[in-house]
Formats: sequence, structure tokens, C-alpha cells
Amino acid sequence: MSDGKIHIFDTTLRDGEQVPGCKLNTEEKVKLAVELEHLGVDILEAGFPVSSPGDFESVNQIAKTLKRTTVCGLTRAVENDIRVAAEALKPAVLPRIHTGIGSSDNHIKYKFNTTRENIIERAVAATKLARNFVPDVEFYAEDAGRADLTFLAQLIEAVIAAGATVVNIPDTTGFCLPHQYAEKISYLVNNVKNIDKAIISCHCHNDLGLATANSIAGAIAGARQIECTINGIGERAGNTSLEEVVMTIQKHPELNLYTGVNAKELTRISRLVSETMRMMVQPNKAIVGDNAFSHSSGIHQDGFLKEATTYEIIAPEEVGADTSKIVLTARSGRSALAFRFKKLGYDFTRDEVDALYQQFLQVADAKKEVADEDLKVLAEAVASIA
Amino acid sequence: MSDGKIHIFDTTLRDGEQVPGCKLNTEEKVKLAVELEHLGVDILEAGFPVSSPGDFESVNQIAKTLKRTTVCGLTRAVENDIRVAAEALKPAVLPRIHTGIGSSDNHIKYKFNTTRENIIERAVAATKLARNFVPDVEFYAEDAGRADLTFLAQLIEAVIAAGATVVNIPDTTGFCLPHQYAEKISYLVNNVKNIDKAIISCHCHNDLGLATANSIAGAIAGARQIECTINGIGERAGNTSLEEVVMTIQKHPELNLYTGVNAKELTRISRLVSETMRMMVQPNKAIVGDNAFSHSSGIHQDGFLKEATTYEIIAPEEVGADTSKIVLTARSGRSALAFRFKKLGYDFTRDEVDALYQQFLQVADAKKEVADEDLKVLAEAVASIA
Repeated sequence: MSDGKIHIFDTTLRDGEQVPGCKLNTEEKVKLAVELEHLGVDILEAGFPVSSPGDFESVNQIAKTLKRTTVCGLTRAVENDIRVAAEALKPAVLPRIHTGIGSSDNHIKYKFNTTRENIIERAVAATKLARNFVPDVEFYAEDAGRADLTFLAQLIEAVIAAGATVVNIPDTTGFCLPHQYAEKISYLVNNVKNIDKAIISCHCHNDLGLATANSIAGAIAGARQIECTINGIGERAGNTSLEEVVMTIQKHPELNLYTGVNAKELTRISRLVSETMRMMVQPNKAIVGDNAFSHSSGIHQDGFLKEATTYEIIAPEEVGADTSKIVLTARSGRSALAFRFKKLGYDFTRDEVDALYQQFLQVADAKKEVADEDLKVLAEAVASIA
Repeated sequence: MSDGKIHIFDTTLRDGEQVPGCKLNTEEKVKLAVELEHLGVDILEAGFPVSSPGDFESVNQIAKTLKRTTVCGLTRAVENDIRVAAEALKPAVLPRIHTGIGSSDNHIKYKFNTTRENIIERAVAATKLARNFVPDVEFYAEDAGRADLTFLAQLIEAVIAAGATVVNIPDTTGFCLPHQYAEKISYLVNNVKNIDKAIISCHCHNDLGLATANSIAGAIAGARQIECTINGIGERAGNTSLEEVVMTIQKHPELNLYTGVNAKELTRISRLVSETMRMMVQPNKAIVGDNAFSHSSGIHQDGFLKEATTYEIIAPEEVGADTSKIVLTARSGRSALAFRFKKLGYDFTRDEVDALYQQFLQVADAKKEVADEDLKVLAEAVASIA
């Protein structure tokens, strides 16, 4: 844990794909997997091999294709799931089996109708079986976000003793607040004797809009892997957004954390995933939304034009986006108007801009956005008078 | 601060409207304002009166219309802005002027080209002037997220002494981590002598995806107002999502906080704002996205059908959404398939479902989503054999 490297575990093709209408075929999955390896993710969860023949095939093809990235397959703590996953992962250079079981009393009672003791037995058996096939086994304690802490620590200690190399503490229902999620991770760091033999992983869902904050809080508390998807896609409100995690870490060097992701590729891959999966990204999505670098209010535009850092903590180039946009609306001020006139080749004096500004506001109040064409009409009217 | 009431300051019509392509006319703004009062927001920021004649008119009409909600107008720390806002707000039962100035050294240097001392002078003068017009004056310390803490405390103490009833600590650029934002609020609570005479307000932006977490962290640290917008709309990556803040507080009674918002209206108003502003909401948006209550993976569907709370912390009815959806894809399991067959009137035995499941998987691998029509074809084939 001394090193600050945060392993990025991308699950766009597994948990991300668990979205109505988003199913990908094998060819599409392999194509995205190659792009994700190029982006620099450390682990790629390629699918849930036992769930369908198509998923088996996708995991198998990705395992054949990727050379530098760990390829991971999901299983339940069920013998057949693990055997099938091992089979699908056979060609992988760096295979990982991801197995696990519910850990909250809610899941133990309603999903499994069993006892805490039996859950530990099944977890240990699944981990050992998976280790027979591959040296890298990740264990997930499903719904850990609502699990009893003492029991969770026992379970985690048992699976690490059984050979788990990574232990995943999912906030399956997206319920935790950041300080609560951090407390869980801290508790495990301090109370699981063999915790130094495994990497702790954060897997957060976004049901309350807190997935990124929870993952970062987990990393500050000692986790060294974050599970996430491009554009935060996934079931319900989705998973943690890969792009938000990567840029939060990059913009906060005081955390002494880093990732291997090449941020300049984020915008491109965001659009690729959105198009391939037909899952639109809202314009105000952090980092990758169409408006993420658009300034439209006068106060912001004026500040931004004097010095970009007044209103921008990320330069668009850093994430491979186009340049910042100065959008003209009724909220815009004189400096933005002058800036846009100048871009069109008109070099008006201050007084001229003042006079034009009143006419501009009338156009802006009537229209949602003032375009270059509208500005030209305004400018030519002035020019013909002069 | 002893009471846990969090005042919801809605700025959908001001900061939210600062979005390319979203400008609303006065009629649309008044209509949304009435809906927001019905939703139960405490303060409604209606616009920036000096910015354009259209904005003045909107603020003025909303001031005339709302009776139970505080109506607020934005200004810079500029005399004319404040006079114009006071004029626009004249008809309001509960008027508030929101004035302020940059507080970070970045803003002081690049935007204002002045000194910290001069900033305090301007802030005090603006607050006093605003108090001449209305009894309720909110002061914003722009870019407080990056401001020097000692200076910020001096500034806040000075404006409270000058009559500010609410002090807004904006993370203008969306830069802070939750624990950092909480530390700022705590510092002000502990170091501003007259802090008990004002309410501290959180105004967070979502550039790193942390706005909701930061606002909640601020409230835990002692803030009692949160500024937010429906669907989190706003410039760049937008503002804090009203719906996420309200539901996070509602789902965490251990915080001893509450709001006056009627959560059952959230879905309806989210759609209304999205349609009126033509700002789409992505399907995986927390609380109000189309998929927020959709389950598509087999593990989740199986658990959900046994007991909804295994995978849902919010019941859709709580926010006025349709019932949870069980979407059939290649990730679905036998229990979801049986559930959907039953809804169509087919009561198959376990063995029959087992047999049908293999055929279902072939359809599901070929299609993105399996519809009722596909299920009927499968079911009728079995029925004709039997």
C-alpha cells in the first residue's frame, strides 16, 4: 500500500453492459477491449462467461487478443461458473477470475436463505477452486456497503487466507456516503490481519450520485484498485465514471495517487462507447459531456477570457476535447461579444461594442443562442452606417 | 444551526439556465417557478436582473407570482446591479438579493486586478446597499473553493457584520474533494465570530463529478442551505443535482438533516425541466434517469424478485417514478424469465422454464433486449409441442 498506484479495473464490458438496450456482440466487445488497453486500464472485466454462449465467446476472444492488460471474468461462488470462466480465460496472458457472494445480512437472508458461517464456507471454497486455475483471484463481498463490519472483516480474512489476491468491497446499492465508505475500508485495513497480502478494490454504484466521491474516499483510506466504466454506464444509475476518477486523481496531486490511464484519450473513448452502446451522455456530464468546457454566462466568460484558470480546472486538451467554447446567449457580456466579433474579423472599438451590445441583447433575448450569422448581420449594419 | 433543516435554494432558472441552448422565455420561467414552489424549494433564484431586459422581466414576474417561496435575484458587487435587482424584486413577498465577489487570489488578481483589502471593501459596501432594499441578503464569495482560508474568514465576518443573512461558499470550479470542502465549512464555523448570525450555504459545481458529495459534506460540517438545480443542469458540467441531495438526505436519517421537498414530485419535475429546456437527461442519471430503477443482470433480477431491497435503496414510488423494470437481456436468469412469462399469462413449470431458457439465451444473444413479442413466440412454440 506504500505505492500510490491506483489500478483501474474497467468493467464497461461487464457491469457497464448490464444496461437495457446496450448488449454488444463479440466483435464490438473485442474492438472496445483493444481501445481500453490502449487507454491504459490495468484490468479489463470482459464478461460473465457462464451467463450465455455469447458472453463466453467474448471473454475468450478478448483473452486471446489483449497482451498487456489483465483480462477478468465474473463468476458467482459456484463451481460451474468458475470452471467455465477458467475455460474462457485460458488463452489470456494475464487471467483473473472474479468470484464472490453476498455479504450483507439482507443478501444472506433474502438471496441465499443461509447463515454467515455458510457464506464464509462457500466463499473460501470458490476462492480456492479459482486459484487452482489462475494465480490472480479477486473476491467480491457483494453488498459490502450494508454488511456488518465485523463479519465483513472475517470474510475478507478468510478469502485472503484461501488465496484471494484482490478483495472487492462493493457498495452494490449505491447507499454509502463517502466518509462511511472510507470508514469501511479503514476498518478492513486495520482489522484484517493478512490485508497486506491483497489489494483492496472499490466498486461503487451511483444511485445517490456519490460513486466517484466514494471511490476516491476509499482510495484515500487505502484501497488501490477502483472499478469503473466509461461514462459511468451500468445498471440503474450506473457505476463509477472512469473519467471522473482519473481526472480527480490527476488534479489532486496532494493525494499522492496516480493511475496509468492516458487522459488525452478520454474524450475519444467516451464518444466511441456512447456510439457503440447507443447510450447517450448528457451535455452536462463531468469531463466528457458536450458542454463540459462551454462558458455561457457573462461573468464566467469575462473571467475566462482574462485568464482561463479563473473558471477552468481542466484544460480541454488534457482530456482530448476540443477547445473551450464561448457561447453567446443573453447571459453573455461585452468581453465575450468583442472576442467573438474579433474571431469573425471585426475589430470594433470599445464604444462600438457598447452600442452593438444593446442590439445583441435583443437578439439574445429572442433566441436561445446567438450564432456567427447573427453577429455578421449586426456587424454589417454598423459597418454600413459608419 | 441546532435545527437540521437544510434550506433548498433552487437555481435551475439562473445558474441552471446558463447553458448553451437552454434560454427560457418569461412565460416558461414563471411556469417552472410555480412548479418549483409546489415541489417545496425554500428559495428560488429567478435570474440575474441586470443582465438583460428579458431576465429583469422574468425575475419581476416570478416575484409577483410566488407567495410562499423566497425569490432571489443575482447581482455582482456593483451598485447598479443591486439597484436593478431590488427593482425587479419589489413585488416579492419574500425577496432576497444575492450579491458577491471573487475571493480566491486567482480571481482577485486576474478578474479584478486588485487587493484583498479592496475586495472586502467592495463586499461590505454591496451588502450594506442590498440591505437598504431588502432584509434578506445573501453574499457569495466566488471561487471560495480555492480561496485562502484566513482571508475567506475575514471576508465572511465582514459581510455578516454588514448585514448578510446567508453566506454562500461556492466551489465555483468544482475542484474540491468532499473532505476538503467540509474542512472549509468547519473552519468558518469555528473561526468566524459572528457566524451564528448567518446561514452557511453550499454552492458546488460538478466538474469532477463531486458536487453532490461536496454539498452533503458541507451540510454535515454545519451548512444549512444547499444551492442546486433540477437534473444538475448548468454551465460546463453543471451544478449540484437537487434530486440527489434531497434523496441522499432522506435515505440517511442518521445525519439528522431534512428538507421541505416533496420527493414524490421529483420525477415529474425532472421531465418537465428536461423538456422545457431541451436538456436531455442520460438514462443512467441518478434518481431521475430512465434506467434508475431498471434491473437487467440475472444476479440482480433474481435477488430483486426475491426481495426488492437486495438491490434497491429507493422504491420508485418514493420519487414518483414508474415501477421497477425487469428488462430481459442475455444477462437475465431463469427467475426473471419466469417472472415475465407469468406477467404475460404463461404459468410454466420449473422444467419448462429451464428448457425455454436455452432458447431465450439464443434470442437474447442475437438481440439487445428481449420483448414481450419474442417471449410469446417462444411460449407458443412450447405450447404447440405440449
